[in-house]
Amino acid sequence: MDVFANRLKAASKRADSMLCVGLDVDVRRLPSCLSKDPNGVLTFIRAIVDATADLACAFKPNLAFFEAMGPAGWQNLADIQSCIPAGVLTIADAKRGDIGSTAEAYARAAFEVYRFDAITLSPYMGYDSIEPFLRYEGRGAFVICKTSNPGSRDLQDLIVSSPSSRLDGKRPLFMAVAELVASWQPAGHLGLVVGATFPQELAAVRQVAQQLPILVPGLGAQGGDMERAVLAGVNDCGELALFNASRSILYASDGADFAQAARIAARQLRDEINGVLRKRCEA
Amino acid sequence: MDVFANRLKAASKRADSMLCVGLDVDVRRLPSCLSKDPNGVLTFIRAIVDATADLACAFKPNLAFFEAMGPAGWQNLADIQSCIPAGVLTIADAKRGDIGSTAEAYARAAFEVYRFDAITLSPYMGYDSIEPFLRYEGRGAFVICKTSNPGSRDLQDLIVSSPSSRLDGKRPLFMAVAELVASWQPAGHLGLVVGATFPQELAAVRQVAQQLPILVPGLGAQGGDMERAVLAGVNDCGELALFNASRSILYASDGADFAQAARIAARQLRDEINGVLRKRCEA
Repeated sequence: MDVFANRLKAASKRADSMLCVGLDVDVRRLPSCLSKDPNGVLTFIRAIVDATADLACAFKPNLAFFEAMGPAGWQNLADIQSCIPAGVLTIADAKRGDIGSTAEAYARAAFEVYRFDAITLSPYMGYDSIEPFLRYEGRGAFVICKTSNPGSRDLQDLIVSSPSSRLDGKRPLFMAVAELVASWQPAGHLGLVVGATFPQELAAVRQVAQQLPILVPGLGAQGGDMERAVLAGVNDCGELALFNASRSILYASDGADFAQAARIAARQLRDEINGVLRKRCEA
Repeated sequence: MDVFANRLKAASKRADSMLCVGLDVDVRRLPSCLSKDPNGVLTFIRAIVDATADLACAFKPNLAFFEAMGPAGWQNLADIQSCIPAGVLTIADAKRGDIGSTAEAYARAAFEVYRFDAITLSPYMGYDSIEPFLRYEGRGAFVICKTSNPGSRDLQDLIVSSPSSRLDGKRPLFMAVAELVASWQPAGHLGLVVGATFPQELAAVRQVAQQLPILVPGLGAQGGDMERAVLAGVNDCGELALFNASRSILYASDGADFAQAARIAARQLRDEINGVLRKRCEA
């Protein structure tokens, strides 16, 4: 199997899309035509996937919302995989991070039990908390770097310096994370998460991480500036970025036409991203 | 209901114990007399809890190992709560950390669905990723600060400086996290996690966080120096620490006498901790 970075390029090319559809499905926000329980969530997700799979290079279920439904939520998560077409990647939005033996268990869960193609991870506990996820052929690990929320300032913007030669000079913590992850092996397995709400920071991260896939959430409901984020997110070859939208697609309509509305929203966003990239090529 | 810090003091007093028994149960490491499946895990945990509940102030299931068993693992987690006696606290070792709406879902899972008394969280995404966990009366949130693994050096030891008046001067990142968490509200809900393998760092954290419960893992199998860690972990009044041991108790014997052996190991560790504290009082 090819490394994850190449699988992402292939998925992106196949759908002519850098769109990732986030499956942050809150049972309380389902359209009124569906039952507000795990069965309703499964029906909802199947309809969203059917309506958008040819427009997306990846789906990103957010594990928190499945966890909040109790054991039945995890059965849902297992069932979802079977309705996502081959070639469209699946990313577990989990932000896990723990010591080695525990990280191994999380990696088994994500890659063996639930068969995800990639997972999001937290960097706080360092390389040995990430490494167990890198042992799986073809799978990817996106490390959170600069996140889209206001609280991202609390730690991620602290100015760090280090005596290590790899990290000399001063920089915000999130840049140190970007440089560290770019230095970690094996290449092709690792990626970063940088929120669309911080396009300047995204551009700085991309500068030091040309070879890494970058997952960029917050393009839709969180109100990021689309054009700036797209230009900042791709590498010099105009590739290796994934732009995630969740609520703006999932809840495009709360009526019985929710799937059709999701398709329209997804197609529009995909086309807008592609429009920015075409203009960039012509420039 | 009293705030979490007071509930912890009460639990500790009741059992005359600062011992937390970590339930990091790997299905592959069960004693040979038990089936290597979720049923075997449940039988094992019930026996461990029955054998040690009067010696412990808390149990700390590690969610990774339940997640790795698929949906049945989460049913196990729900079933465990009913066999833990009232007054002994339960801590979800989850190290979650995500933006607000997702953090709310994780908090619902931990405190409403699985009814834990406390949870471990990652600080990387800042205050708004922690705050949703602080809305629950009587519940606690332990934020990871300096962890026991070798990779903890990668980020946690980076030297940070910040223009913020709250964080002037230079310090390692983990100290900035300790100071931040000590400054967050509401008091009584928050705690920290600092590994026993770094007693000097633990002492430094305790200095700036007199009022916070500190969960100290790594006392058993991870090889920390017991006496130094105990003295560094408690506050000036000799309280508000929780010393966690997992494997040294769970796997004290791999024969049919595993529960009895776990009880002996737990009692010995509790008594050793109490011995250090008594010597400290007399000094």
